[in-house]
Amino acid sequence: MKIGSPYGTHRVIEPLGVLPQGAWKIDNTMEIADNEILIDVTALNIDAASFTQIKQEANGDEARVADIVRGIVAQRGKHHNPVTGSGGMLIGTVLEIGSALANTCPLKVGDKIATLVSLSLTPLRIDEITKIHMHKDQIEIKGRAILFETGLYAKLPTDIDEKMALAILDVAGAPAQTARLVQPGDTVVVIGGGGKSGTLCIYEAKKRAGVTGCVIGVSPFEKDCQRMKSLGWADHTLQVDATHALELMDAVAGVTQGKMADVVINCVNIQNTEMGSILATREHGKIYFFSMATSFTAAALGAEGVGKDVEMIVGNGYATGHAEHALALLRESPQLRQLFEDLYV
Amino acid sequence: MKIGSPYGTHRVIEPLGVLPQGAWKIDNTMEIADNEILIDVTALNIDAASFTQIKQEANGDEARVADIVRGIVAQRGKHHNPVTGSGGMLIGTVLEIGSALANTCPLKVGDKIATLVSLSLTPLRIDEITKIHMHKDQIEIKGRAILFETGLYAKLPTDIDEKMALAILDVAGAPAQTARLVQPGDTVVVIGGGGKSGTLCIYEAKKRAGVTGCVIGVSPFEKDCQRMKSLGWADHTLQVDATHALELMDAVAGVTQGKMADVVINCVNIQNTEMGSILATREHGKIYFFSMATSFTAAALGAEGVGKDVEMIVGNGYATGHAEHALALLRESPQLRQLFEDLYV
Repeated sequence: MKIGSPYGTHRVIEPLGVLPQGAWKIDNTMEIADNEILIDVTALNIDAASFTQIKQEANGDEARVADIVRGIVAQRGKHHNPVTGSGGMLIGTVLEIGSALANTCPLKVGDKIATLVSLSLTPLRIDEITKIHMHKDQIEIKGRAILFETGLYAKLPTDIDEKMALAILDVAGAPAQTARLVQPGDTVVVIGGGGKSGTLCIYEAKKRAGVTGCVIGVSPFEKDCQRMKSLGWADHTLQVDATHALELMDAVAGVTQGKMADVVINCVNIQNTEMGSILATREHGKIYFFSMATSFTAAALGAEGVGKDVEMIVGNGYATGHAEHALALLRESPQLRQLFEDLYV
Repeated sequence: MKIGSPYGTHRVIEPLGVLPQGAWKIDNTMEIADNEILIDVTALNIDAASFTQIKQEANGDEARVADIVRGIVAQRGKHHNPVTGSGGMLIGTVLEIGSALANTCPLKVGDKIATLVSLSLTPLRIDEITKIHMHKDQIEIKGRAILFETGLYAKLPTDIDEKMALAILDVAGAPAQTARLVQPGDTVVVIGGGGKSGTLCIYEAKKRAGVTGCVIGVSPFEKDCQRMKSLGWADHTLQVDATHALELMDAVAGVTQGKMADVVINCVNIQNTEMGSILATREHGKIYFFSMATSFTAAALGAEGVGKDVEMIVGNGYATGHAEHALALLRESPQLRQLFEDLYV
């Protein structure tokens, strides 16, 4: 009988003294401590920035993607992309619950769950990669994982397909944070509004900003813009590459009569969009960076460089009740559910 | 007669289409456009994270520091540290004001100013390095620099020594943002409370939190802790290394009866303090990251990893009125002024 740290520090191999997320390598031995949960893993949802990088490194070759994924886990004991620093999440079934959790943990063996903590800190062993969904950032595997005592998870609902639940839970923080940020009447710009988290942000932003507000979706791709238009939640769609900061600024100025955005939500998983976000925001406005490709110094120095007094917030993937909130969106909007059905399942 | 971009994009050499801060190299030709200001530079205040890295690369050798500084400017046309991504600021005298600014710019030739935009976007030419202050992150030079139309600056006051003004203006955003963040009664942790910006944050935090609040200064160094104690603005000082997240959490729990901090302000210029900041914060508390050594992904995934619902803010070096605010602190507190006199001039 042994009790591990609630944060999982007992599994850190190197460097010692840090938490599992900060560690280069963690112990992925699949024997649980008394306050851990063992999971039989069926699918990984790789963080979009990470999967984009892996696909680029693999030149789009599926077998090479599998090699890279296996290599990362073999090297680090977790799927923690060494280039992007990001992870993802997983889906699986509870195999064993540590004895110390028996009275407090609402789970039972056999429950289907999705972990809501990042793969970048989750002990993982891949026994077999059974399928790679190149366009959905998803990998089906046979394997095992460990959930620490403080690890978040969501029991999968019975009324929503499990892959759809995984797809939305992966970005559950985005609509939950949008709900907190956006006030009635606000002008909101969603950069990367055609992507998965971007779509949810646009939907939630329109709900919160209301008829007196204005939601503006941005994407460099015509297809994304057309989808945003046909979904009807964005008041304007701008086909602009957000890495072109001045172009984005001009486009947002055009549809806001120069007033710019009260809130900018950045959901694109590409680099160098910090300045575009800053220039699209009004003085004293807010910017929420969900993109894992965000550079802290580019944001901090960028705002200072152009003398812009804006509040820039680091996207937190966790917000109280975010899983319930995200799943409820699929129940309330058949249109959103159909979109997830078509694109992410 | 030529008018440049107000953001200085006309000086970007590579890659084209970005703003000067994002550029690898900018044009440091010292002929001004009609909306630029030419400055005769006397001193550079290097960002602390950058100067620490340069000193490490130079193994503490002063001549080698000079070589590295000259090398960066020769390569990039600006003092933009390629490792840390950060810059600093400069002090100098107005040599020439572009004709297009003649009617709007409150400066005149001969005025002493400090630029409040980062050196990471400021065209700079170093003709001679005359003195390096190894422990004050300051370098005296002979040289020239360009201020763009949107570039921020502060006219140097006549009642405050110019090096002291430069030292405080360099971190002017820190006390200004602290003033906005901290409410009466708040428990505030300042990580790196013994440093320059940390000291200002502690001073300002105590002023705002008041007698019902609690300000906690953190530093790994005994000397820093003793200074914090003798200055008397911190209610508690904790001698803890913030890279040891769990130790910091335990120490803050100890002096707050487990309630943790409402606001954590991170001012240390070392890596891997994101998790310590997160664990020291109460649920629904706020973290302000001033450190340029902050990793965006470590912060975002760290909070998610331990399931902590906290608001994490990217430190913006600019806030409306920050220069006046910072200089006023030196006028209102003789103790603070003496400290700056002793340590940073």
